[in-house]
Amino acid sequence: MSSAGNELKLLSTWFSPFGSRVKLALHLKGLSYEYVEEDLMNKSQLLLQSNPVHKKVPVLFHRGKALCESMVIVDYIEEAFPDAGPRLLPSDPYERAVARFWVAFIENKFVAPWCQMFDVTKTREEKAEGLKQILAARATMEGALEEYSKQGKPFFGGDSVGCVDIALGGLLVWVRASEVLSGVKLLDAATAPLLSAWAERFAALDAAKAALPDFGRVLEYATKMRGPAAAKAVAVLNK
Amino acid sequence: MSSAGNELKLLSTWFSPFGSRVKLALHLKGLSYEYVEEDLMNKSQLLLQSNPVHKKVPVLFHRGKALCESMVIVDYIEEAFPDAGPRLLPSDPYERAVARFWVAFIENKFVAPWCQMFDVTKTREEKAEGLKQILAARATMEGALEEYSKQGKPFFGGDSVGCVDIALGGLLVWVRASEVLSGVKLLDAATAPLLSAWAERFAALDAAKAALPDFGRVLEYATKMRGPAAAKAVAVLNK
Repeated sequence: MSSAGNELKLLSTWFSPFGSRVKLALHLKGLSYEYVEEDLMNKSQLLLQSNPVHKKVPVLFHRGKALCESMVIVDYIEEAFPDAGPRLLPSDPYERAVARFWVAFIENKFVAPWCQMFDVTKTREEKAEGLKQILAARATMEGALEEYSKQGKPFFGGDSVGCVDIALGGLLVWVRASEVLSGVKLLDAATAPLLSAWAERFAALDAAKAALPDFGRVLEYATKMRGPAAAKAVAVLNK
Repeated sequence: MSSAGNELKLLSTWFSPFGSRVKLALHLKGLSYEYVEEDLMNKSQLLLQSNPVHKKVPVLFHRGKALCESMVIVDYIEEAFPDAGPRLLPSDPYERAVARFWVAFIENKFVAPWCQMFDVTKTREEKAEGLKQILAARATMEGALEEYSKQGKPFFGGDSVGCVDIALGGLLVWVRASEVLSGVKLLDAATAPLLSAWAERFAALDAAKAALPDFGRVLEYATKMRGPAAAKAVAVLNK
């Protein structure tokens, strides 16, 4: 990891899948950074001042300036440190647009309904609709990976991990915890073999091992914090 | 407008606010393009083949390659034609990240609830929630414009129009039509004076005049196509 004084500081919460995305980008690029743990139950002045619009982690500080929104930060890391580590976005503008298309797809068609599925304020019908949308998104991503596989590419980013892998990979531990809590397999070898194999390859990366939270700890946290919601979700989803 | 053979073709529908964003970017950059009108009631093979994931307009073709997702296309136009017309994104990586933050904000906090507000499948509570979120987003954007105004900048993009202005400006005619149909002022001088003044400045641009659909025609279309929904929305919103 580079020891250059990049003056990077990451404000996040250990379990945040969006914080994991930023950590992944930093580790893939080999950039050293200071890490500050945020307590979301008692938000710090630093968080409130640096992300007044959303008041959410992650926030990355570079030379004192605050950056918010995980995938905006990943873009920034590539653009501010083009010469560090592998490229996180393709150099060709068209290929870059394709990568951004898939990042938007993951945000809108996977993350949004996934949040809906575990939102205690949502009705049973809304949660079921969330699951339906996730399964449709999974099928679409499986199809996209088939195209990449045909070209012999192990990742959405091609030979190495890129922003699409980061967008999805940051969620991986939480997706696995969701599977346990809901009883619904999202990335399993039977129904999504290519995504399942991609998830295994991704989880084996040094950057993933360094950046992603421990599965057992996330599951324990999710069970404790979202227990009643998860139990409700299981009841809804198993019907 | 440049007559260089850029081989640009835009597939869109005359009333699409997302298509308007792409048109705005092309006109601001002075790029000539072929325009193909899509019939969304009877989707063309060209649309189905070029945007198989979403089957939605706009699609921009550049040298035969298809690009989808309006704001991804705007990014692409800047990156593929950096020397044509004004910059649509700042050259500084930090400023660019700030612009992308606001584009994401507009997509998630303004467009998503705005669609919800006019979605006939949503309940009265969901529509009311949509309006609440829009008004909160409006207040946030008014605050952001205050910062820009203090710096003497007439647009989110600074002295000239940028991607944030395009993201919001592409919706302008539909926002105005929504105001008439719902009876709720969204960009009015009394409650959002800076946004209201920004909207007037934006609408006066040559690119806006060339790219945005005619207000009367949009209103007529919206009244005809979404009449019952709009009437329902008015009833909900005026309660």
